[in-house]
Amino acid sequence: MKPYSEMTIYELEQELKMIRKHYRHFQDLDLHLDMSRGKPCTEQLDLSMEMLDELNGEVDLRCEDGTDCRNYGVLDGIREAKELIGDMMENHPDNIIIYGNSSLNVMYDTVARAMTHGIMGNKPWAKLDRVKFLCPVPGYDRHFAITEYFGIEMICVPMSPTGPDMDLVEKLVSEDDAIKGIWCVPKYSNPQGYSYSDETVRRFARLKPAAPDFRIFWDNAYGIHHLYDLDQDYLIEILAECKRVGNPDLVYKFASTSKITFPGSGIAAMATSLNNLEDIKKQLKVQTIGHDKVNQLRHVRFFGDIYGMTQHMRKHADIIRPKFEAVERIFEEELEGIGAGSWTKPKGGYFISFDSLPGCARAIVAKAKKAGVTLTGAGATYPYGIDPNDSNIRIAPTYPTLEDLQIAARLFTVCVKMVTLEKMLDEKRSNAEV
Amino acid sequence: MKPYSEMTIYELEQELKMIRKHYRHFQDLDLHLDMSRGKPCTEQLDLSMEMLDELNGEVDLRCEDGTDCRNYGVLDGIREAKELIGDMMENHPDNIIIYGNSSLNVMYDTVARAMTHGIMGNKPWAKLDRVKFLCPVPGYDRHFAITEYFGIEMICVPMSPTGPDMDLVEKLVSEDDAIKGIWCVPKYSNPQGYSYSDETVRRFARLKPAAPDFRIFWDNAYGIHHLYDLDQDYLIEILAECKRVGNPDLVYKFASTSKITFPGSGIAAMATSLNNLEDIKKQLKVQTIGHDKVNQLRHVRFFGDIYGMTQHMRKHADIIRPKFEAVERIFEEELEGIGAGSWTKPKGGYFISFDSLPGCARAIVAKAKKAGVTLTGAGATYPYGIDPNDSNIRIAPTYPTLEDLQIAARLFTVCVKMVTLEKMLDEKRSNAEV
Repeated sequence: MKPYSEMTIYELEQELKMIRKHYRHFQDLDLHLDMSRGKPCTEQLDLSMEMLDELNGEVDLRCEDGTDCRNYGVLDGIREAKELIGDMMENHPDNIIIYGNSSLNVMYDTVARAMTHGIMGNKPWAKLDRVKFLCPVPGYDRHFAITEYFGIEMICVPMSPTGPDMDLVEKLVSEDDAIKGIWCVPKYSNPQGYSYSDETVRRFARLKPAAPDFRIFWDNAYGIHHLYDLDQDYLIEILAECKRVGNPDLVYKFASTSKITFPGSGIAAMATSLNNLEDIKKQLKVQTIGHDKVNQLRHVRFFGDIYGMTQHMRKHADIIRPKFEAVERIFEEELEGIGAGSWTKPKGGYFISFDSLPGCARAIVAKAKKAGVTLTGAGATYPYGIDPNDSNIRIAPTYPTLEDLQIAARLFTVCVKMVTLEKMLDEKRSNAEV
Repeated sequence: MKPYSEMTIYELEQELKMIRKHYRHFQDLDLHLDMSRGKPCTEQLDLSMEMLDELNGEVDLRCEDGTDCRNYGVLDGIREAKELIGDMMENHPDNIIIYGNSSLNVMYDTVARAMTHGIMGNKPWAKLDRVKFLCPVPGYDRHFAITEYFGIEMICVPMSPTGPDMDLVEKLVSEDDAIKGIWCVPKYSNPQGYSYSDETVRRFARLKPAAPDFRIFWDNAYGIHHLYDLDQDYLIEILAECKRVGNPDLVYKFASTSKITFPGSGIAAMATSLNNLEDIKKQLKVQTIGHDKVNQLRHVRFFGDIYGMTQHMRKHADIIRPKFEAVERIFEEELEGIGAGSWTKPKGGYFISFDSLPGCARAIVAKAKKAGVTLTGAGATYPYGIDPNDSNIRIAPTYPTLEDLQIAARLFTVCVKMVTLEKMLDEKRSNAEV
């Protein structure tokens, strides 16, 4: 089919008429589908059910060092959990703190602590006139919600397939000491599925921030969440790179097993330099007596080691790969070449990012909603919920069944076409009037 | 035996000689005993092992309302957990938020949130020149550590067997709007095992604080932790009392199952007014996607209901009651009538509080340590670790075996006598010189 932009008003009208018919057809189906959040589907959750068998009433709940996981103690995680998560995060176990069930909560705490107590002896952020964060966009709405909650000013930095615009990051960070952090999802990014290039990671490690308490918030949420066994993105390990270039304290790195075992009932972790760890533990020891060691042990016993975890992730991939592929196939079939938007083709993670023509995203999401398909709200991928182009839409293909997903994806393309056609017709008509 | 105070110098010397012999005897035993923290013993932990059988690979992990506990969602806890913990806390399920594994962490968060965001529209505490908390003393060291960490000034209020000195609390709270909170362990208090009298609770509910954002931090850690089945302390339920007297938002109430199932792997909760809950949830939704629902379900399935939990607590009582009784018996045998200190006789909770003669506590703890018995550090029960009388020592009888505990308690009395005798002799001799 020829691009919409080359169509006459008459052709556009004919096309819109047909698309509206398609849309009504979907409305008649009385759909209730959800492509809004990056949630694993039931089959994925079933993969971890045997983890619950690992600990039962007959099992010894002592660690290798003899610690009884059932009792108080061990502030920063049991040794074997640090070993396992260390292998998962590609960091030394001594650089790791094992937390509770939510890495988001760890990030929140990290910002909250910087607000009230500062980082490594620097002034608490709450006592400064202005605190700013860089936000690669589009990005993860829950990151932006944390900085917004604390009144931190968010500055957008454009993303590209190789990562954030590093010229801009370097410039801003070196010039403005009110900039205290940057939110990064460096691998299979949320929402694009981009992975930072080697050059991007190297430039991150070599940043020369004006603020001594600037930190990179490196949320490696999808570190081992590949769709393919061989065709995987590889990310230079940031802590090691920072250490190599004499910037050891520059990064807080986060991860969790939320999308490996059970979301909300996994284990979260931070990896960072020993200096940062020492700083953090001053708070940690006041905040809690310790996190859930029984659950840490459960995870360790289930996976055994990183090979066990990798095998487990291949099973996840086998379930969700067809879903990503189905969405991409439908997008290609329906949208390729018509100039109604573009989308990413990630090799891992939980999302596909769709960019409509400017000014169409909100209308597309509203139309989908009206036909029974919930998408992530347009704008959600930008700070303050404001997408200046009104074009980005995050697609989360994992949760629905393959069958439902295909219906939802097809409907989505119908909404994209309908909104795009309406917009183009409006423009062409008003141009014709002039 | 006659009181030390009535002994002559010669008699005191003879007594000290004998006690030192006893002490050396204990030193020869090469002890490594710990009476420092309120930790359940192994037999207590074994009581909950069957909880691990409740959820296994074959079990349906859906809530009664169909929610799959394995996936993301449910910010404030699953309904059945709210019902169970509601019965445990004597509060309506709608007044409850179920958190993660640590009530201490909930209290920390509550203070941290007040620091950065204020309470119900009031100015954030971090923006005030001074913030103060009342601290009934002796009290719980980890409470004091939180307020100390946030630079909150702590004002000591003396405890009595009926609770804090309410004349003083009322006066301070009504006069000074910098006073924003008070730490309370209202039932089987830490360390005395005192329970607030009806009048005390009623006066708490009727406080007229100068600060609109004053809150009572009501840590009902030992709400169902009775030693006896009939001879139990009863506490007027504070939320209901506050509501009855027109002060509904005055209290944050905390509890957990840490000393019911597994410390560190239980579930924690807060109960408070709907207004407070609404205020708190603005933060909660930014902080996390949700707490560990699988563990909530595990607890609910294990206990079934509050009757199941009550039966379970009787098993705990049967294990630790003999330990409390042994300590009390040994203290009576060794210390009754000699005027070397006094101790509490709680009907529940995890501690016995010992008060030596002024100026003796640190020396007693040091002597015990030297003979291989670790006690809670002297001063720990006071803000900033400073006991102005140097007299309070917290005894935690639950963790050691009954056999070890009896040795440790006996040694403790020897240390008490030795330090008291040395001090009295010093004083008598210097008086004699004058």
